[in-house]
Amino acid sequence: MEISGCSIIGYARGAIHPPLGAGINPATGARLKPEFATASPAEVARATALAHSAFGAYRKLPPVKRAEFLRAIAAELEGLGEAWLERAQTETALPRARLAGERGRTCGQLRLMAECIEEGSWVEARIDHGDAARQPQPKPDVRSMLRPLGPVAVFCAANFPMAFSVAGGDTAAALAAGCPVVVMAHSAHPGTAEMAGLAIEQAAKRLAMPEGVFSLLFGAGYETGQRLVEAPEIEAVAFTGSRRGGTALARLAAARPKPIPIYAEMSSVNPVFLLEEAVATRAEALAAGLTASVTLSVGQFCTNPGIVVLPAGEAGDRLAEKLAEKMRAATPGIMLNPDIHAAYWQALKGKKSDPELRWLTAPAEASRNGECLAGAALLEADAATLRRRPELQQEIFGPATLLVRVRDRSEMLELARALEGNLTASVHGAEGELAGAGELLAELERRAGRLIINGYPTGVEVTHAMVHGGPWPATTDARSTSVGTRSLARFARPVCFQDWPDALLPEELQEANPRHLWRLVDGSWKQ
Amino acid sequence: MEISGCSIIGYARGAIHPPLGAGINPATGARLKPEFATASPAEVARATALAHSAFGAYRKLPPVKRAEFLRAIAAELEGLGEAWLERAQTETALPRARLAGERGRTCGQLRLMAECIEEGSWVEARIDHGDAARQPQPKPDVRSMLRPLGPVAVFCAANFPMAFSVAGGDTAAALAAGCPVVVMAHSAHPGTAEMAGLAIEQAAKRLAMPEGVFSLLFGAGYETGQRLVEAPEIEAVAFTGSRRGGTALARLAAARPKPIPIYAEMSSVNPVFLLEEAVATRAEALAAGLTASVTLSVGQFCTNPGIVVLPAGEAGDRLAEKLAEKMRAATPGIMLNPDIHAAYWQALKGKKSDPELRWLTAPAEASRNGECLAGAALLEADAATLRRRPELQQEIFGPATLLVRVRDRSEMLELARALEGNLTASVHGAEGELAGAGELLAELERRAGRLIINGYPTGVEVTHAMVHGGPWPATTDARSTSVGTRSLARFARPVCFQDWPDALLPEELQEANPRHLWRLVDGSWKQ
Repeated sequence: MEISGCSIIGYARGAIHPPLGAGINPATGARLKPEFATASPAEVARATALAHSAFGAYRKLPPVKRAEFLRAIAAELEGLGEAWLERAQTETALPRARLAGERGRTCGQLRLMAECIEEGSWVEARIDHGDAARQPQPKPDVRSMLRPLGPVAVFCAANFPMAFSVAGGDTAAALAAGCPVVVMAHSAHPGTAEMAGLAIEQAAKRLAMPEGVFSLLFGAGYETGQRLVEAPEIEAVAFTGSRRGGTALARLAAARPKPIPIYAEMSSVNPVFLLEEAVATRAEALAAGLTASVTLSVGQFCTNPGIVVLPAGEAGDRLAEKLAEKMRAATPGIMLNPDIHAAYWQALKGKKSDPELRWLTAPAEASRNGECLAGAALLEADAATLRRRPELQQEIFGPATLLVRVRDRSEMLELARALEGNLTASVHGAEGELAGAGELLAELERRAGRLIINGYPTGVEVTHAMVHGGPWPATTDARSTSVGTRSLARFARPVCFQDWPDALLPEELQEANPRHLWRLVDGSWKQ
Repeated sequence: MEISGCSIIGYARGAIHPPLGAGINPATGARLKPEFATASPAEVARATALAHSAFGAYRKLPPVKRAEFLRAIAAELEGLGEAWLERAQTETALPRARLAGERGRTCGQLRLMAECIEEGSWVEARIDHGDAARQPQPKPDVRSMLRPLGPVAVFCAANFPMAFSVAGGDTAAALAAGCPVVVMAHSAHPGTAEMAGLAIEQAAKRLAMPEGVFSLLFGAGYETGQRLVEAPEIEAVAFTGSRRGGTALARLAAARPKPIPIYAEMSSVNPVFLLEEAVATRAEALAAGLTASVTLSVGQFCTNPGIVVLPAGEAGDRLAEKLAEKMRAATPGIMLNPDIHAAYWQALKGKKSDPELRWLTAPAEASRNGECLAGAALLEADAATLRRRPELQQEIFGPATLLVRVRDRSEMLELARALEGNLTASVHGAEGELAGAGELLAELERRAGRLIINGYPTGVEVTHAMVHGGPWPATTDARSTSVGTRSLARFARPVCFQDWPDALLPEELQEANPRHLWRLVDGSWKQ
């Protein structure tokens, strides 16, 4: 497969416009070929206009056709073979095995979404029968279901070049829901992006999908993404990235003449609370588990545990020591790209002279020949410090975590109350301890999307029940998840059909229930 | 019951602060007693702080207790008897029968929400069982359900002093979902508001609800509402009112340090499309039906049909004539308040000299002695004019409608494509005609929340399937409805519980399903 460095606008290629960008091999610092063009304003406009016109046809396709499309994309991605993994590895330094796993996850997401729309109950069909004899007014027949929103702009994540990028969860959910997608590639892995884009284009062509159901834009700088969000045809935005980036896009989305929903997954420190008995009896396992979770993929997960709350006292000291030891022993890894690498060191540097932080593990700054190497960092602070200085809650993207020592359970609770929104919160405790930690769990629930007991936040299952979301600043919309089948609902809205002739209704709402959906009929769930 | 004119802050009364406001009897122009105080900044802060602290306890109440609370509110409202209707009539000039109906609707909404949370499946519980044997990683047990967002600010509507006000649909949905409510009263019916507020307070006290689960603020001017939306404890906003007001609140909500969701139901012209055969064969019924819908409650419904699309030609001319005749014959009515009355006449005046509009029915300006009288207005324009001048799509709140003449079906379709978002769109047609109008229906679906066949948009059933919402500018959030049981979801977000001991899980997610909910278990719906 030939990588051209040009945007994919419907079934055509964009032209070569400056400024040009390129992926950088984070293991060597080498600028990768080819250079990538920036989509021109006209190309952005063409992509969104095509998406708008494709929506008219795409939304009407039977779900089984959309499911076929999703499965064809998965097959095309698999058909890219080793070349895709290789390109992704060159652009991100992620290990081949991890990328093979991520490809599996990506294709699995597409197939799960396909299954979900084929089964069909996700549209939440509801029927309330009419009653012509009702006094003083006849009661109309009212039916409703979720229908697609329209063209969706998807922004790729730096840290998942496949599963949260061009053909990732946002694209899968939007296409499944019936929405065309215009993807903004991440500038750090443009080649991986183009290969995925060409695979989607191939699947779309093969199944004669309307042109514009998918486009892929490249762009150095912010302007292309800004233009995309401001395009009048775009009806929703999905983004995975930094708090700054997500906040900026959210402001753009809200300031449009017609504001649109935005789902930005931004920043999270995923606090882990360790209760006394667990600390006393499971120190070794906890230290090992935490180190593994913090350093997994060089700490470059949005679910990376960035704050660990630990009781003061001897047992806590022992765990802190063990943790420091294991973090010191962890092998440094190559980060995703020079920007992320620089930001990580910058963040640590800023904490070097902070008199209220204690360094338990300080990584050696050791980048040779442009290699984006990073080692693990473990800092410690008192609970009072963290409560007084909310900026210490800001995510450090990388293998760093802050141990926070608390005097007692009540200080632990106060700390929980001082937390910002997070994707996850975890509690480790012995059985009896957990039963007595109801108040802590309740406080954490108000501040997180997923609550984990005796486990670690990294590793997000793609299932029906998963919630990968959470209160601001974890995301811009705590009512949503970007992982799992609940994520489809982000790109849909309920539409109500009143007194329609049965034959004109969408199949999902027809009296005979030809699709055998679970529906809420006159207040009762029925199939 | 004594009306004091003071805000209700938890279980206490606010003080008398200036500026004072008062309801105006729109039938006489008389300023009503008592004067109403403006909640001070400290009182707003106290109400939101109480709501925040009440949330901790209220969210933990079993649904059956919340349901009991909702039913107790309904009973208290009914207990207000004729006095409540009388006060509402004095403040709004709405007829007694309409208000009795609205009270029934208000209590019905509360009881429907009670039923819905008692049944409980609205929380959309999902369970994916774990698998300890999975390779390479064990699969965790993952469960999720909707949980309440937190304190909600509710802004009362001018046109529904009961059903969309203090104890209206937004309050019912928020309380049902588990969220405390701080209501901002509408300055045009403060007495009706206070009576409802005292009824809620009474129910809350009787059932020992945590103080702060409900507060009611009065305020002349915008500052009180602004302070309420900006209060850090508020987690969501519900509003029914003007486009200007809703847009302003939406900007405030988005500009907060922590942005929050806002559900503003704002403006809609509810286009009605009349197909050729229906026009040729049912002119009399259509003219009567449209006149009734346009003039119902002096046109003061958000679902009032403000645009009627009618074929050019003889049959269309005949219908236009009949409609003009009936609109001329309609009895003028008293509008809700002097502001709305002035805005109505102002809007009509602005169209008086418009050379592209034809007046088919022009109401006589006839306000005697401060009486807010308004008659029906029927204007006509060409489709090309409406498409060229989007400002003609702006809602005129009152008994006015704009006939738009189209040459043929293709011009009708183009007009549909030029429409902004609406709460509803209606199509009248004969059976065969409708079957051939698929493209029109599809275009309308993209621009409305509810699609009505051979009916009129006024009259919104409170049911499970109802959608009273729609794309911007009908609302700020097309993914939501403010009527029906779907409206609960506005005040909730999904929370995920990973690897929790069964006994610590919310009942809704426990393995034995003690509440007998419909749940999605490992991908299948089960009870």
